[in-house]
Amino acid sequence: MVCSIVGLGLMGGSFGLAMRDYFDEIIGIDHNKHHCEDAINLGLVDKIGEFKDIEKSDVVVLAIPVKSIINSLQNISKLNIKKDLTIIDFGSTKESIIKNCPNSIRKNLVASHPMAGTEYSGPQAAIADLYKNKVMVVCNIEESGKIQRKRAIDIFNKLQMHIKYMDAKEHDRHAAFISHMPHIVSFSIANSVLKQEDKEHIVALAAGGFKDMSRLAKSNPHMWKDIFSENKKNLLDAVEAFESELKKAKEMIEKEEWDKLQEWMKMGNNLHKIM
Amino acid sequence: MVCSIVGLGLMGGSFGLAMRDYFDEIIGIDHNKHHCEDAINLGLVDKIGEFKDIEKSDVVVLAIPVKSIINSLQNISKLNIKKDLTIIDFGSTKESIIKNCPNSIRKNLVASHPMAGTEYSGPQAAIADLYKNKVMVVCNIEESGKIQRKRAIDIFNKLQMHIKYMDAKEHDRHAAFISHMPHIVSFSIANSVLKQEDKEHIVALAAGGFKDMSRLAKSNPHMWKDIFSENKKNLLDAVEAFESELKKAKEMIEKEEWDKLQEWMKMGNNLHKIM
Repeated sequence: MVCSIVGLGLMGGSFGLAMRDYFDEIIGIDHNKHHCEDAINLGLVDKIGEFKDIEKSDVVVLAIPVKSIINSLQNISKLNIKKDLTIIDFGSTKESIIKNCPNSIRKNLVASHPMAGTEYSGPQAAIADLYKNKVMVVCNIEESGKIQRKRAIDIFNKLQMHIKYMDAKEHDRHAAFISHMPHIVSFSIANSVLKQEDKEHIVALAAGGFKDMSRLAKSNPHMWKDIFSENKKNLLDAVEAFESELKKAKEMIEKEEWDKLQEWMKMGNNLHKIM
Repeated sequence: MVCSIVGLGLMGGSFGLAMRDYFDEIIGIDHNKHHCEDAINLGLVDKIGEFKDIEKSDVVVLAIPVKSIINSLQNISKLNIKKDLTIIDFGSTKESIIKNCPNSIRKNLVASHPMAGTEYSGPQAAIADLYKNKVMVVCNIEESGKIQRKRAIDIFNKLQMHIKYMDAKEHDRHAAFISHMPHIVSFSIANSVLKQEDKEHIVALAAGGFKDMSRLAKSNPHMWKDIFSENKKNLLDAVEAFESELKKAKEMIEKEEWDKLQEWMKMGNNLHKIM
């Protein structure tokens, strides 16, 4: 079986690294020449190809931003692809991708979102066990073809992932709470400290807690700008839900309602009972 | 040398565990009988004693909340302590402790704050390397006696900590940014998700990012209520600095100013250049 990976960054590169044994050949496709060179040198793919190589592929993984996935799906629909081609996209929002997938290849597509990643990007950041034990969300699976479903599930099992099926709309809302809003919060923490005159002295005291809370602020701004714009409405809902809790806490602090604040924190402790 | 540890929780217990070889005897003191039993069973201290045992101690570590530290200092000043007793407090705010330390024992006190901890509490949470490679902030060191300074520094070196000297006022402000405000933010994230109808489905998608951002929301509400109340003004300043960044981000998202949002995130990336 031949697999093409479009996008040789952290996600695509890690997929290649983990799946070298599974496929007979993995072809890497990326506009960025440096990424292509790195992918070969790091052994993430067997060779570098071009978009038309999808025609000889059995599986294609689209590990690129949502807008580029939508473009790629349009372009794939114009290729002379194998009838049973399985297209797996790793887009971080799912509704717009599914809505914009050409009908002629809708059965080929298995719309997926791996809940995995690090704050680093690019092929150099690829790691073989990025996906291991992580959740793979598969959206609107009933719209995918039988052969494609089976193939994708086999691949996700090979990656040792936990598969969760979900409606695309629901996924996009959940992703806003679990991932997109926390990124905005982490960047807000980073910037609030950087605005302080004595920022160097402040960060000199950083321990594990602060490092955790500011880690997401290392993320790639270009990539995240696109994710935020794709999920604007859900993101704003999640930011507002967060803001409302912060406002409550601030008011209790201002009014010195310490016991009430303690109850509010006790409620927060419950998160870890369901997670 | 005899050391007393007042408070056998995570901080005091971990101190005992790490310093068993350094002292001839470590006496544990705690109101909580279960903590005393655990501390003995876990080998955190050599024996359990009472407050009056500070009289035969060369070093006493106050690993208790700020208000209790202030009370303990009053009580220690009434004991018949050794002239060169070194009192080390681990209070998480420093100005009120120093201000309220009786003059008669001010030279004995080395006001310190270890930038270390986990989201867990109690003697069961104690770990021998909690302090290793972490920052120990020592405040207003010029007010401590020469013998006490030397003893405390020797102890912190034995713990393999990085010592930073700081003015108490400055410390309290920094701690609000690096620790207290991020706790409020983490609890706000946890509570905002818990308020959602489909919270179980949301947290099912949690990956490393969300786990990091919500980890501090596991912290002990009773303990943190006290810390927040001790540092109210600085905490509110830090929360407001954070809120102002969040507001900016929200407005850019609402107005779809994606390039401006990207620049704002790029600024956040700089945090990790100075940390």
